[in-house]
Amino acid sequence: MGEGRPEGPPRRTSSPPSPRRLGSPSEIPLAEPTDHDMAHGRSNGSVPGMFPVLVVHGGAGHIPNERAELSLAGVRAAVRGGYAILQGQGSAMDAVVEAVTLLENNPLYNAGCGSVLNAKGEVEMDAMVMDGTDLSSGAVSAVRRVANPIQLARLVMEKTSHLCLTGDGASQFARAMGVPDVSEESLITEYARMRWKKNIAPDANPVECQMGKMGTVGAVAVDARGNIACATSTGGMLNKMEGRVGDTACIGCGGYADNKVGAVSPTGHGEAIMKVTLARLILFHMEQGCSAEVAADKALAYMKERVGGLGGVVVVDPQGGWAARFSSLQMSWAAAQNNTLHYGLYSDENFTQNIEDPH
Amino acid sequence: MGEGRPEGPPRRTSSPPSPRRLGSPSEIPLAEPTDHDMAHGRSNGSVPGMFPVLVVHGGAGHIPNERAELSLAGVRAAVRGGYAILQGQGSAMDAVVEAVTLLENNPLYNAGCGSVLNAKGEVEMDAMVMDGTDLSSGAVSAVRRVANPIQLARLVMEKTSHLCLTGDGASQFARAMGVPDVSEESLITEYARMRWKKNIAPDANPVECQMGKMGTVGAVAVDARGNIACATSTGGMLNKMEGRVGDTACIGCGGYADNKVGAVSPTGHGEAIMKVTLARLILFHMEQGCSAEVAADKALAYMKERVGGLGGVVVVDPQGGWAARFSSLQMSWAAAQNNTLHYGLYSDENFTQNIEDPH
Repeated sequence: MGEGRPEGPPRRTSSPPSPRRLGSPSEIPLAEPTDHDMAHGRSNGSVPGMFPVLVVHGGAGHIPNERAELSLAGVRAAVRGGYAILQGQGSAMDAVVEAVTLLENNPLYNAGCGSVLNAKGEVEMDAMVMDGTDLSSGAVSAVRRVANPIQLARLVMEKTSHLCLTGDGASQFARAMGVPDVSEESLITEYARMRWKKNIAPDANPVECQMGKMGTVGAVAVDARGNIACATSTGGMLNKMEGRVGDTACIGCGGYADNKVGAVSPTGHGEAIMKVTLARLILFHMEQGCSAEVAADKALAYMKERVGGLGGVVVVDPQGGWAARFSSLQMSWAAAQNNTLHYGLYSDENFTQNIEDPH
Repeated sequence: MGEGRPEGPPRRTSSPPSPRRLGSPSEIPLAEPTDHDMAHGRSNGSVPGMFPVLVVHGGAGHIPNERAELSLAGVRAAVRGGYAILQGQGSAMDAVVEAVTLLENNPLYNAGCGSVLNAKGEVEMDAMVMDGTDLSSGAVSAVRRVANPIQLARLVMEKTSHLCLTGDGASQFARAMGVPDVSEESLITEYARMRWKKNIAPDANPVECQMGKMGTVGAVAVDARGNIACATSTGGMLNKMEGRVGDTACIGCGGYADNKVGAVSPTGHGEAIMKVTLARLILFHMEQGCSAEVAADKALAYMKERVGGLGGVVVVDPQGGWAARFSSLQMSWAAAQNNTLHYGLYSDENFTQNIEDPH
């Protein structure tokens, strides 16, 4: 794969497969769910005609050649891990948290271990989850010394009456929940430290250094019951000010999930994503009748035109349709549905392989 | 004014006055502004037919009888202060920050001095501003020991490349900007301490104690040039966990402003406001053709039905139309336009007086 392709309009990378069919042999078609089942409560049985889907991304931006293959291998592994949960009749929430945990644990991405460093050379992370059944959500911002911020975000959703905890308060909550404190060093890779040093050098070009460093990770899923969830996690922006919070901890910006409409997890320039509330904007377009792909392209084009921001998104709709779209040069993404794994990095790429293929 | 009125659908409190006319004798009608002037750039001249408007709120909820008159006097004073800036051809941003600063300085409201205390008996505040000309925004979350978080949020917008700073990072930025550190004690009122103690008592009813303690403050404005801004500030939720961040620091939830559509500042149950991204939701309805009033009512009814949340909003549109609407029992609000001051506390109230009336 080459570098240096010119920036252009949002890339066509995938379309929902059709026609729909059941995603797993163990699914037992039940009576048609009521609107209430779909929209307001977790329904108890599989939805006829629904086949589960999981889509993940490993960040939009410009991925150096030597890291491109590894980046694709990482998103394929993450989607396999999360999809196994969906195949076992697990929930969309379990699947997206599993996929994002795998990406946080992979030092290649800007989340968990491998996070970029702030101006002081430290790691501060943002993460959020959202459950489309009842719009419940949990987030942490500027959190330090936890291995998996996405799991802490889920605990905020499940164990508190709040939606977001920040900084020291988030750390105290982590300790109260028995989440292990990890060392700062265990989160910092040599690559992250090298980039940080390069960027604070007197001759650094901060704009150039920032380009392509958008390795936020995320996932969206629809499970066999029609429940929808999203998860996003990031180390933020290279050399950010201490305490900077980006889109990832901000509901509607860095993620949104609604069983009635779909789910979005974005990546890209956090400040631009926030200015246009990117995740919610895409779902508004879908509420107006746009497909996941068209809605994503409209919103990404708007973000570029209105505030000059590039980025990418993974999107699902309640029927299991999905899209992975980006206005940046690249976005590593992978999707799994109907036992097929899809993935790509550049515009118009949609490679496929059997989900059982171990590579 | 009595207490104990039953909860119902969103209350009709105000409608945009019509027909439109110039707001100030000093306005000089200029050529019709282009779409570009209105939407993407700060235009330099007054817009013919536009008259400036400022709407503020002092929080939705249930205001004790003995504080009701004071609460109305406070929002009237804040709207007078901000409107004077609009009358002097000042910007919408200057007007909303002035109005919210006045409300933060008034110990009656849950923002700045008078903020509610968190579970540890401390003050942590959230605030945000947004400028509809270019969607730029600034926010602080869980910030301590500053008298006026709204001014710090504006500094984040104007002096950094970020949109939100949290906790210690926000405090460091404040010091770097020369914002004075104030004592924790200077922000805590006897009333706030009494309520905190009452709520941690062994026989406390936390639900009852939480009711009606939603004194978040906010403002929206359109200036003579057609520029639009919003500002929101809060001490958050009584007895919140340390580090809890509510809707106010979250763009699209606790505020949004877009010259093309309008601006919203909400108040109410932060977690519910976040789940439905209330501010952006109202503006989406306005983009679909709803008036400010209808859009606010639709979104508040949706928030109540979907996630069981009550609250209120102040809204403006680019033509100077405005609304102050709420699903809670009360919301203290005031508006100024065309030298008339409007205000109210209960459903269907819209008292008016001349802006020059000092009370």
